[in-house]
Amino acid sequence: MRIVVLTGGIGGARFLRGVRAYAAADGAAVTAVVNVGDDAIMHGLRICPDLDSVLYTLGGGADPERGWGRAGESWTVADELAAYGAEPQWFSLGDRDLATHLVRTTMLNAGYPLSAVAAALSRRWKPGVDLLPATDQRLETHVVVEDGDGQRAIHFQEWWVRHRAQLAARRFVFVGADQAEPAPGVCEALAAADVVLIAPSNPVVSIAPVLAVPGLREAVVAGPAPVVGVSPIIDGTPVRGMADKCLAAVGAQCSAAGVGALYGARSAGGLLDAWLVDEVDADAAVPGVAVHPVPLWMTDDDATEAMVRAALRAAQSR
Amino acid sequence: MRIVVLTGGIGGARFLRGVRAYAAADGAAVTAVVNVGDDAIMHGLRICPDLDSVLYTLGGGADPERGWGRAGESWTVADELAAYGAEPQWFSLGDRDLATHLVRTTMLNAGYPLSAVAAALSRRWKPGVDLLPATDQRLETHVVVEDGDGQRAIHFQEWWVRHRAQLAARRFVFVGADQAEPAPGVCEALAAADVVLIAPSNPVVSIAPVLAVPGLREAVVAGPAPVVGVSPIIDGTPVRGMADKCLAAVGAQCSAAGVGALYGARSAGGLLDAWLVDEVDADAAVPGVAVHPVPLWMTDDDATEAMVRAALRAAQSR
Repeated sequence: MRIVVLTGGIGGARFLRGVRAYAAADGAAVTAVVNVGDDAIMHGLRICPDLDSVLYTLGGGADPERGWGRAGESWTVADELAAYGAEPQWFSLGDRDLATHLVRTTMLNAGYPLSAVAAALSRRWKPGVDLLPATDQRLETHVVVEDGDGQRAIHFQEWWVRHRAQLAARRFVFVGADQAEPAPGVCEALAAADVVLIAPSNPVVSIAPVLAVPGLREAVVAGPAPVVGVSPIIDGTPVRGMADKCLAAVGAQCSAAGVGALYGARSAGGLLDAWLVDEVDADAAVPGVAVHPVPLWMTDDDATEAMVRAALRAAQSR
Repeated sequence: MRIVVLTGGIGGARFLRGVRAYAAADGAAVTAVVNVGDDAIMHGLRICPDLDSVLYTLGGGADPERGWGRAGESWTVADELAAYGAEPQWFSLGDRDLATHLVRTTMLNAGYPLSAVAAALSRRWKPGVDLLPATDQRLETHVVVEDGDGQRAIHFQEWWVRHRAQLAARRFVFVGADQAEPAPGVCEALAAADVVLIAPSNPVVSIAPVLAVPGLREAVVAGPAPVVGVSPIIDGTPVRGMADKCLAAVGAQCSAAGVGALYGARSAGGLLDAWLVDEVDADAAVPGVAVHPVPLWMTDDDATEAMVRAALRAAQSR
């Protein structure tokens, strides 16, 4: 059994723990295709929040309370950078986390592609899944915001972290997407997949930038595997994060049905064969898509693995 | 009164505290021309040990016990880099110190010259002296060593830190020196100086690379100011560090007289008008140079300031 997961963010990383638990029990192979749209250069270092969330969460190094970053993190370097007045001061790099960025930046500057860096970092963290960036090229999510001075585009991290998504977003632009191509192994994994899962990640800023890589969406839609999505919205509220602000910007409803409709039915040019929603959203309907109400709270690995088993059942019942 | 100090290393930074104390009392202006031969790229970051030693030592941020690096230092990033197996593992960057390298590397990558970086970092540390790198170009001290495999050249830091200067050194090469020029302000400061002091730094790997910048030695020797050196050797022993290994490599005697002879008399094409030696070395003679025995232990700022006053008296008695 070969499972490909499209993923990004903390929710996606936690979902992958359930996928890995399932795979360990059933001997399946898992490939995670991870969003790079959140990536940024800070203090000259390449930051890859979503790739690192997978490494840390699956490698046992994540902070379980905060969700992002390393457990037992300290902030000595960040305090010193602030003492120098170094910008950006609205983005703090933890000391432990920073070492990852140093290793990655050194490798990138030496000419290694991001996918090779992910493989190298995986040798330490042993995530138990094949970790692939959606693309080796730079693909950055920028946000067109509007305030008293009119419209301007800012980096996703500035919108998300500095402005806490409170600046009105007009649209999202995936800078560099036109020059990107799927990272080595992504299309091969999709072509060989028995099932493609869309993690309960933010559809607008985690999954959409993955699918914005030319050829990647096509490889999913035209591929042999059923595609099963998991709703990141339960009872009209994001499980985590500020997906409501993102969905509003693209004119989608913040609901299980709304996100399902955003992805769309594969039979109608969309993505989904099946759509998992929480039991409270049992009445959610997505035209052309089989909707499966199951418990979607990832309270622990067992609960998350049960979600994954439900997704695989949904795939088989296509 | 305008004082220029040629300096490098911890001894030089401590000497500068005395120069600054003197200058504060007598309204003098101090320019420190600092060795960059120890500089290295580690984990993609530009490390400038000698410039930073001046900033930290004069800015109150240095570790008084260890000598190098920051007070209250921690090693979280270094531990993480080691966990990744990132090379070089023989050189540990402290967390606080690392922030300095991030700021510097970001500025250098943005196109600022090293002298502009030194000025920017000085805005935080307020060293009380004008801090100039000897050159803005890369000038790196490499060491030709010999072991069972024959001769090879390694970076100074590898020789000094990794091998603790225990590998037999045949000679020192200042890579890039032929392409270097004095940093902006260096020649101007030398031309306007009332006195040039050579700090009690390692003559072979701290002072020689400063003088290896084309035009810099000439600006000292042909300049209007008397040149007074301070011996880094007391009673045949380096005050700090492993200068004995360096002196042996260039065939010089590890003594106050030996280093004085290495610098040479200005009247005979060398550097020195006067040479301060410790009282225990009162019998040291350097042909053509006025030798002044005075206490040379930099036990505190007062003792160091007294050395500086002695150096200035020696300058006046030229």
